[in-house]
Amino acid sequence: MMGLDDFKDVALKYKVIFFDAYGVLKNYKGMLPGVKEMFHFLQENNIAFYILTNDASRSPELLAKSYIDAGIVEVNENKIISSGMLAREYIQNKVQRGRIAYLGTEASAHYIENEGLNTISIKDVDLENYIDISALVLLDDEGFDWNVDLIKALNLIRKKPIPVIVANTDGTYPVTRKDVAISVGAVGDMLEALARKTFIRFGKPDSQMFSFAFDYCAKEHDVTKKDILMVGDSLITDIIGGNKFGIDTCLVLTGNVQPDSYELMIRSYGIIPDYICESIVL
Amino acid sequence: MMGLDDFKDVALKYKVIFFDAYGVLKNYKGMLPGVKEMFHFLQENNIAFYILTNDASRSPELLAKSYIDAGIVEVNENKIISSGMLAREYIQNKVQRGRIAYLGTEASAHYIENEGLNTISIKDVDLENYIDISALVLLDDEGFDWNVDLIKALNLIRKKPIPVIVANTDGTYPVTRKDVAISVGAVGDMLEALARKTFIRFGKPDSQMFSFAFDYCAKEHDVTKKDILMVGDSLITDIIGGNKFGIDTCLVLTGNVQPDSYELMIRSYGIIPDYICESIVL
Amino acid sequence: MMGLDDFKDVALKYKVIFFDAYGVLKNYKGMLPGVKEMFHFLQENNIAFYILTNDASRSPELLAKSYIDAGIVEVNENKIISSGMLAREYIQNKVQRGRIAYLGTEASAHYIENEGLNTISIKDVDLENYIDISALVLLDDEGFDWNVDLIKALNLIRKKPIPVIVANTDGTYPVTRKDVAISVGAVGDMLEALARKTFIRFGKPDSQMFSFAFDYCAKEHDVTKKDILMVGDSLITDIIGGNKFGIDTCLVLTGNVQPDSYELMIRSYGIIPDYICESIVL
Amino acid sequence: MMGLDDFKDVALKYKVIFFDAYGVLKNYKGMLPGVKEMFHFLQENNIAFYILTNDASRSPELLAKSYIDAGIVEVNENKIISSGMLAREYIQNKVQRGRIAYLGTEASAHYIENEGLNTISIKDVDLENYIDISALVLLDDEGFDWNVDLIKALNLIRKKPIPVIVANTDGTYPVTRKDVAISVGAVGDMLEALARKTFIRFGKPDSQMFSFAFDYCAKEHDVTKKDILMVGDSLITDIIGGNKFGIDTCLVLTGNVQPDSYELMIRSYGIIPDYICESIVL
Repeated sequence: MMGLDDFKDVALKYKVIFFDAYGVLKNYKGMLPGVKEMFHFLQENNIAFYILTNDASRSPELLAKSYIDAGIVEVNENKIISSGMLAREYIQNKVQRGRIAYLGTEASAHYIENEGLNTISIKDVDLENYIDISALVLLDDEGFDWNVDLIKALNLIRKKPIPVIVANTDGTYPVTRKDVAISVGAVGDMLEALARKTFIRFGKPDSQMFSFAFDYCAKEHDVTKKDILMVGDSLITDIIGGNKFGIDTCLVLTGNVQPDSYELMIRSYGIIPDYICESIVL
Repeated sequence: MMGLDDFKDVALKYKVIFFDAYGVLKNYKGMLPGVKEMFHFLQENNIAFYILTNDASRSPELLAKSYIDAGIVEVNENKIISSGMLAREYIQNKVQRGRIAYLGTEASAHYIENEGLNTISIKDVDLENYIDISALVLLDDEGFDWNVDLIKALNLIRKKPIPVIVANTDGTYPVTRKDVAISVGAVGDMLEALARKTFIRFGKPDSQMFSFAFDYCAKEHDVTKKDILMVGDSLITDIIGGNKFGIDTCLVLTGNVQPDSYELMIRSYGIIPDYICESIVL
Repeated sequence: MMGLDDFKDVALKYKVIFFDAYGVLKNYKGMLPGVKEMFHFLQENNIAFYILTNDASRSPELLAKSYIDAGIVEVNENKIISSGMLAREYIQNKVQRGRIAYLGTEASAHYIENEGLNTISIKDVDLENYIDISALVLLDDEGFDWNVDLIKALNLIRKKPIPVIVANTDGTYPVTRKDVAISVGAVGDMLEALARKTFIRFGKPDSQMFSFAFDYCAKEHDVTKKDILMVGDSLITDIIGGNKFGIDTCLVLTGNVQPDSYELMIRSYGIIPDYICESIVL
Repeated sequence: MMGLDDFKDVALKYKVIFFDAYGVLKNYKGMLPGVKEMFHFLQENNIAFYILTNDASRSPELLAKSYIDAGIVEVNENKIISSGMLAREYIQNKVQRGRIAYLGTEASAHYIENEGLNTISIKDVDLENYIDISALVLLDDEGFDWNVDLIKALNLIRKKPIPVIVANTDGTYPVTRKDVAISVGAVGDMLEALARKTFIRFGKPDSQMFSFAFDYCAKEHDVTKKDILMVGDSLITDIIGGNKFGIDTCLVLTGNVQPDSYELMIRSYGIIPDYICESIVL
């Protein structure tokens, strides 16, 4: 009833393609088959692309490196748009003073390091001396002690009314074919409920991620929303986010949604992609 | 501890001001005192403004009329940015065929009337013949029978996987000093939970509303986010939405948040405006 | 993997059986095939039974009548345990004075009529004179104007801190093979969210319904929890409720859960019945 | 407007009193002033009592010890009713085979140790060999590595459809005058959302806790619901739970609800106690 489309035919209709990374271009084992050829094809046909990822654990440079290491020369740090970049823009626009506490690794903290602002890992925060802490940013699920430091983070925001920024909206991420890990987005949901505060979240499906990517892309390309396609494996982040932002969307069946259940899932959620492709293989 | 600012001093720091309407410029009795003088002051000082409203029940023309009727000559339909305009943009970008069913008055349906597309009030939908219905849009809490037509809307979306767009994210709106009415946003929440679908919502605090206003404003003015101030009476729509979008925010105490409890509410929600003014009176 | 059991074999292991009504004994067309024979079999084998229903729209007498009219002589009003009976018990224990406002038909109001207490339909409440109203009870989705009277109910509870009792926890109920209606439970969820209050709910899966039935049953029969089986068609009301209360549970596939998807649903919810039977047919 | 009652006068109206522990009888510093005298007064006046606590981290014996150590001779293990006891009853009634995995300390595991059943800490579970695990019980926030073992628990329940029991419904518990810790109830909420399962929860305000206490009490005393008073410091657990169960309730202002804001909180939640006392001091 819902037929499958050929990715090559779909891609040729657009000037710019936004890709989700995990489940579309890569998985827990590394790059998916055909990714290299696909990017080459886009290049040959003058189709620009960006990779939109709910990942604030590593810098765009590091995120790009995994593609470059796999011999995909078309990807570089300027092609990566991560939710961490939105957190950084927020900090730049809205946090003018003080120290910024964070949950995450030191590597993730690069997103919030900014002229005139100091950052401090939550594990180094002293709850007797938190007067100059001006924001809390959740960046990564690693780099801290979950029990001790989540409790510390909770008590910090109970005592001091500071903005809390969650730079990753996902609940889990896959680590093997069958197993997942808990992402810092889920940790943020728990802390928000316990503190009864309203946190600020960045990442798909929120339209600010798409808007950021569109503005970023519009600096280099003369495009309207009708020229852009979002390709993703998740109905509830990639597809609904792209739909709501007003760009066309393409579901691929190499990640969250399986080939044997895509019709059921589309009907069940009521989230309808413009195209469905088995994969990005040409 | 949190001091009050003078609105005149605050306004003079910005090139553009976004205003919420209800609780800031008007209330159930009509225009608030000082609004006329304030708009005149902005004009004299070359400060541009837009009114951002979660209202899809009436066209920008009709929304502007209430200001014009009150002798405020600076307001016209081009100054109004309503959540209904985002619903219209969505329809234009993403719904290419079929009939669009809607909950609301005929007046509200103007937002979704589009070349080549027919609209149909949910009350005229025949549940035996819905094959060509391609979307459902929730526009206004009036214009239909709540019992009969909400059930009809629920059964429609249970049977057919179509996008459901909610063009008003508010739960209630004030009708007298003490009483509220239930807005179509709350009706949308109920239907979404019962249908177990994911609806598409437009309106503050969602960043797409601010992004739409920013792009709209950028066509006429050469501005960055740092040049814009959001003025609102609601922490959970105006202030958090403006904060997250990265513009400065100003809470006024003439609506949702009372002068005797603003500190408590700011602490309790953890949503912190850049400025707090008693009102927009100069 | 999860094999089907024979209902006769299962039933013979217990002294008392609790039945859900809709989807187990009846559906929108009337009694299901085999119900009459099944009740006769229980009688012959000295197995007691009760019918537990989330229905406060009609009295036990009226609820029993549909069985009697179908020639099922074993059912009478003493076999019916409805969520309305818990609302009545609450009123008797906790509301000693004033008038009790209700949403529902006059027939449903019988549950809350009590010596010394007056009841008043929400449609007759005067919002200028509500001083003696001491509780609001949601009984049925019929008997009032959804738009006018839901707004009136919302404003009443915003103004006066009274307990709100919801005597039906279901969101929808089936009216034909494909269509549902919105039950007063969903209306209660909407009002509770808008009023930011905490309502009091009665009905499966809440354990108070099972506890009430157990106490009711223990007056006539010498039983422990191990002697009782709950038979239902819904994992999220009948089965989880029975499991949590500590009695054995049997899922039948004649209502909410279909024969072709029961394994998927059991795995997906993580709610595991002790037995699964195609139907209550012997 | 809402006057304060004298605890002595209130207590004398009842045959049995149910006490919450934390915020009523004790706090982070130990026993509250007057508790010893109050229990002595109850004894003299033949008023029975039970302590109802959402605590599955320690056995009733250990929980009673803190009272005995403070010289309160009236308290012993038979006076303690903990949410862990309900988890134990559930296991006894519903889990007949296999190993029961748990999150918590070894001390907390005593609640689920049962003839013929083995228990295993989640930290010792091997995700390659989980075939005989028949349930997961969340008992305490200590005794495991939050990062490693919560992920393990999540993957276990994603793979195997087993019941998950949460023996503590609280989100946080106080550890000093200003600081809280995250309880295993909040951990349960996070895991339940990530796994998209429905967990089984025991503890106030759920009526099963009150029903269990009532049955327990009815073995020793000839009482009806009208003879029992629930005394607690939390509107959303003690008071609403008692109200819904149909017993009278008394809010004390020595814990969650402060003397300067009780009226506001009662109005704001819409949860109304029958009595309000400053404390249990006579």
